Amino acid sequence: MPLKLDRRDPYFEMRFTELLAGKREAQQDVNDTVQAIIADVRRRGDAALVDYTRRFDRMELEAGAIRLTDAEIDGAAAQCPAAVREALQFAAERIESYHRKLLPQDLDYEDASGARLGARWRPLASVGLYVPGGAAAYPSSVLMNAVPARVAGVTRLAMVVPTPGGTLNPAVMAAARIAGIGEIHRIGGAQAVAALAYGTPTIPPVDKIVGPGNAYVAAAKRLVYGQVGIDMIAGPSEILVVADGENDPAWIAMDLLSQAEHDEAAQSILITDDAAFAGRVEAAVEAELARAPRAAIARASWASHGAIILVERLEDAVPLVDRIAPEHLELAVADPEPLSLKIRNAGAIFLGRYAPEAVGDYVAGPNHVLPTARSARFSSGLGVHDFLKRTSIVRCDAESLARLGPAAVTLARAEGLEAHARAIAIRLNLP
Amino acid sequence: MPLKLDRRDPYFEMRFTELLAGKREAQQDVNDTVQAIIADVRRRGDAALVDYTRRFDRMELEAGAIRLTDAEIDGAAAQCPAAVREALQFAAERIESYHRKLLPQDLDYEDASGARLGARWRPLASVGLYVPGGAAAYPSSVLMNAVPARVAGVTRLAMVVPTPGGTLNPAVMAAARIAGIGEIHRIGGAQAVAALAYGTPTIPPVDKIVGPGNAYVAAAKRLVYGQVGIDMIAGPSEILVVADGENDPAWIAMDLLSQAEHDEAAQSILITDDAAFAGRVEAAVEAELARAPRAAIARASWASHGAIILVERLEDAVPLVDRIAPEHLELAVADPEPLSLKIRNAGAIFLGRYAPEAVGDYVAGPNHVLPTARSARFSSGLGVHDFLKRTSIVRCDAESLARLGPAAVTLARAEGLEAHARAIAIRLNLP
Repeated sequence: MPLKLDRRDPYFEMRFTELLAGKREAQQDVNDTVQAIIADVRRRGDAALVDYTRRFDRMELEAGAIRLTDAEIDGAAAQCPAAVREALQFAAERIESYHRKLLPQDLDYEDASGARLGARWRPLASVGLYVPGGAAAYPSSVLMNAVPARVAGVTRLAMVVPTPGGTLNPAVMAAARIAGIGEIHRIGGAQAVAALAYGTPTIPPVDKIVGPGNAYVAAAKRLVYGQVGIDMIAGPSEILVVADGENDPAWIAMDLLSQAEHDEAAQSILITDDAAFAGRVEAAVEAELARAPRAAIARASWASHGAIILVERLEDAVPLVDRIAPEHLELAVADPEPLSLKIRNAGAIFLGRYAPEAVGDYVAGPNHVLPTARSARFSSGLGVHDFLKRTSIVRCDAESLARLGPAAVTLARAEGLEAHARAIAIRLNLP
Repeated sequence: MPLKLDRRDPYFEMRFTELLAGKREAQQDVNDTVQAIIADVRRRGDAALVDYTRRFDRMELEAGAIRLTDAEIDGAAAQCPAAVREALQFAAERIESYHRKLLPQDLDYEDASGARLGARWRPLASVGLYVPGGAAAYPSSVLMNAVPARVAGVTRLAMVVPTPGGTLNPAVMAAARIAGIGEIHRIGGAQAVAALAYGTPTIPPVDKIVGPGNAYVAAAKRLVYGQVGIDMIAGPSEILVVADGENDPAWIAMDLLSQAEHDEAAQSILITDDAAFAGRVEAAVEAELARAPRAAIARASWASHGAIILVERLEDAVPLVDRIAPEHLELAVADPEPLSLKIRNAGAIFLGRYAPEAVGDYVAGPNHVLPTARSARFSSGLGVHDFLKRTSIVRCDAESLARLGPAAVTLARAEGLEAHARAIAIRLNLP
């Protein structure tokens, strides 16, 4: 049974705060193990990768075979069903088209002082993409991580993927090819993150590492941060559906379950102004759970973290949405636009009755890597900005420095930084 | 004596790699102490703030007096010399003007499928600004952190600043007023970071914390990350000057010293194609050090971390610059533009003989909070983007979902996520 809250309940604020504070992930402390693995990869390079791959992925590997050959990639990709390859191609084109529109403009102008100022966006030289093995090997995630990097102009994209028992995932290989990835290493875990961050004889180091992974991968990314950049550490998935009573309850139930089926720690919340509708959705969830292939996971998520919140008017949902700051927000109402404009915090908003969140996971175009665990209050989904960096540009000549310099000299001296002051004063013949 | 490297030396690569790998900061492990302080502030709130302030800042404080009154702020700000206030005002206007030009555009379009897609940038609701006390209380840093937040549209800016012995810094208070900050709390250290992250009865929690601080503040920011956003953890400052032999050696010497005077761990590097000029710069540094007010610090930095690198042609500097990825890069050459366009990695580039880095620390307009420790390979200086977040927007109707949906259903089933597939299929009457 999901949690039931009613905005009119005198204890609502307390209960809603508890819902917000609920921890959904067990913190697994693997730092010591991961630290040892990273140190070992830094010390022994490829030999350490070979050893850890034997131990964790149950396969013998020679250093010379860590990187997949083109024939191996293409051979596996050829096993991908044509319909899936076409759907991946369709998705890649839409992701590329959307992300291309988000590329920032360089700035270059001369201001009234005569100084020339600018901002120059440049792609990262090299990015490592972590792709999980086994059941969590999602080809859609390969596209969502790799395509924006390509759009940004990243020259080298190096993918790592564990291949337990030596098996390559055809759809993942097809996605890599569609995204233009030619460098793939069959390693995973903390050892793969260490190899990308520090380099080994067969794997040159990268500038940033992106992509999802288990607790070991997440811990490794945190530990190598600084040596390289990393993307956000994603938590379990979430959906918040704001729905009026005119929706088909089965549609809304499927949307709630499409997050719940990801993970027992996933969270699905419904906010509605119609108590009877809420009951119909709950019944529809139960009916679907009776036949869903991933029912055990979805049921655990729905029972432990699901919630139905009743409000008097749908506008009352707005402050609740902003406090939840959901990864995914659906506005399944007749006129979603005005409601949408009031929302400050959400990773992605899906508007209308025909915009199920699942369409955004694959083919809508925007990224499916989105901020979780209330971090949409202060962060954004993955995008081209994650693969660019900005250099500011300042050009002065003698005249413009004469206009800007004196104020800088005053401030430098007020801060007790005399060499700062003199670096300017000496050029202007000031005391 | 700074390190001397010559590009033609057969051991250059080894020595340059050592220079890159050099650690300049002692890692101080204060995590246990900081973790205890955070837990205590979460448990006891204002009472904990009062206790830590008594202990670390040697002052008695009542919970009701944690926040400065307007009269206190204005009284202190009035002590700021008029010339300094005018210079701060001048700087604030230039910082605002530059950052306003970097505001990203929202995206909103209908694509060929009929789907409406968008990206909406919204300001963070609340930001906490940490300002160090004592000698490192730089009013320029207040402007560099607060003005971009204001430009982004952040509603609430809460500043914390330790006031050891109760003394307020007039220039810092003047800068806060100029930046439009009205909420200032006289607390510092890990306890202030904890208060901003989790809130206390007198300090509502914020969404993100920015600003520099000592090892305790940095550790606290790392520990509260996730609960709130944080900016980068800045390392010691760096400058790399690429100069031809036509420069005045005293000018270049001042630029090198203007970083060296910050901190013994700061780093100043000169790359030149003129060995005789290099010698003149070194002599000029020595001459300046003989009379510099912060000579002890600057001398230690220059001796321990300074370097002079000789190259045959200035173009040979480009790959070295990109590997160093300096926080600040000066191109003190006759025609800096072509060289500048070849550079990939630098926090800020200063072009020409009349663009000393120090002008960028105060009044040029771009931010002086820039990536250090080679992180310009993958990150950018502080800017309006740090105070905005992007929400993606997807709107479909029945027709556009019919065009996009089938590919998504195919991919969801290929990934074994049947509820994802059904959330789309049920709306399209697909199997």
